[in-house]
Amino acid sequence: MTAFDTALEEATERVDRELGRLLPLTDEVEAQLFEAMRYAVLNGGKRLRPFIVMASSGMFNVAPEQAVRVAAAVELVHAYSLVHDDLPCMDDDDLRRGKPTVHVKYDEATAVLVGDALLTQAFEILAHEDTSADPKARADLVLALAKAAGAHGMVGGQMLDLLAEDAHLDENQTVRLQRLKTGEMIAFSGEAGAILARADHVHRHALRMFAHDLGLAFQITDDLLDVEGTVEQTGKAVGKDAAAGKATFLDVLGVDGARDRAAMLAQQAKTHLEMFGSKAEPLRQLCDFVITRRS
Amino acid sequence: MTAFDTALEEATERVDRELGRLLPLTDEVEAQLFEAMRYAVLNGGKRLRPFIVMASSGMFNVAPEQAVRVAAAVELVHAYSLVHDDLPCMDDDDLRRGKPTVHVKYDEATAVLVGDALLTQAFEILAHEDTSADPKARADLVLALAKAAGAHGMVGGQMLDLLAEDAHLDENQTVRLQRLKTGEMIAFSGEAGAILARADHVHRHALRMFAHDLGLAFQITDDLLDVEGTVEQTGKAVGKDAAAGKATFLDVLGVDGARDRAAMLAQQAKTHLEMFGSKAEPLRQLCDFVITRRS
Repeated sequence: MTAFDTALEEATERVDRELGRLLPLTDEVEAQLFEAMRYAVLNGGKRLRPFIVMASSGMFNVAPEQAVRVAAAVELVHAYSLVHDDLPCMDDDDLRRGKPTVHVKYDEATAVLVGDALLTQAFEILAHEDTSADPKARADLVLALAKAAGAHGMVGGQMLDLLAEDAHLDENQTVRLQRLKTGEMIAFSGEAGAILARADHVHRHALRMFAHDLGLAFQITDDLLDVEGTVEQTGKAVGKDAAAGKATFLDVLGVDGARDRAAMLAQQAKTHLEMFGSKAEPLRQLCDFVITRRS
Repeated sequence: MTAFDTALEEATERVDRELGRLLPLTDEVEAQLFEAMRYAVLNGGKRLRPFIVMASSGMFNVAPEQAVRVAAAVELVHAYSLVHDDLPCMDDDDLRRGKPTVHVKYDEATAVLVGDALLTQAFEILAHEDTSADPKARADLVLALAKAAGAHGMVGGQMLDLLAEDAHLDENQTVRLQRLKTGEMIAFSGEAGAILARADHVHRHALRMFAHDLGLAFQITDDLLDVEGTVEQTGKAVGKDAAAGKATFLDVLGVDGARDRAAMLAQQAKTHLEMFGSKAEPLRQLCDFVITRRS
């Protein structure tokens, strides 16, 4: 195992511990809601976004116990989006990471409410003084996350994705779809460290651009894995996105073109890190990891 | 028309203008999302919660252009909760204020995303510097709204409401259900003015208690209207809640007992306003309005 693998594993464990702590059970009548929230989040996810938050925060020497709260908030938003995306009226997925999705394990109403509760809790975490003693940092984190997750970000991307099943999108439209659906949240993960540290605009923007390019590279390799992978590796039915007529980069670039594009984007992502010197090494290694991963 | 009627109408118009401004349309492919968000919000709602925000802010001389943003944020959360609550997997309602619900007018997927987007936008509005120049006020608003709306507030109440269809709840459990489902958001509306003004804990707590009692009185009269009202007056099928086996105050108090309880709570709500003197007159009149309203 390389030093990067160890760093990734340690960050994942730290974030998972924090998520477990932030999602306690209850013995009230509505216990099912809290059980299902844990089920949706503590699922062995890759925690890409939390790792970016932890690594970008680490460059500014933000206290890990504060950074991990932002990392957890980002993961709650990611988890909520998957729960709602899996609903019968959306992508209608029965399996997520090889396990029944929330609406299958519980029921649809619970899945709707689990998503709502996770999204809301993410903002509660960011606004709490344990995340930062500086209220400006807290408010800025909320503002940036809301923009990334809302109608002009992730939710807008999901709407576009649903509509794309009937409309053939060109390359520009596909890039826009992916930027909204996954890119904005990954870009937020990159800039989160700079916001927490109240770093200047130049550093914040550089991290945003870095994460944006990395996110696109990640999405393209996701599409490649969807076509090439096995169910065991990806935990979802292979080729499902393609079969559903989803607009992916493979449609517009082909397999070889997509692989080249991912490598180019990972390289481009690194150029945004130059101003950070050796401190950015974990993020550089993440770029290599993203385009070489097998699951 | 009384002076209070005029004040209520003016506040409603101001909030509706702000909501219209905060919910622009778009000519992007995903235009349907933005159209449906407007449809869900600009529906002639009573704007009880926004009025409480405006009136509580007015007591502290908060600038109306700031208070109205908080009022709008509260209404977006209320609107989102109705859109999700109306879904087939939840209460399965086809009509809301006499018009097709969002999933009927558009489709279920759009309704899920509309709710998600409205909830997210509420936090974006609160965290934006146009809401307050003081970042502590912005972060505190986000924190308080998230607590009121989340798993320990409104969403928890909705889960409890779904489970209550199979479990007969006693009076204490019914009070708890209503407190979570509607009470916490109304309590937040009351304290919002104090948070915006960075008022001391005593004033903030008094407004919270006021709004809590008012909210219960409002909920009881809602239940009474549900039984007594006509479709034209309430815009939803009469007796629907009772038929669905929903836990209401009528089940545990009866019609006369419920009417007495509402009057008692409205009176009790006013006692929390004593420290505010004549400045609280609009909120006192609201108490009378809530228990005498016919729709």
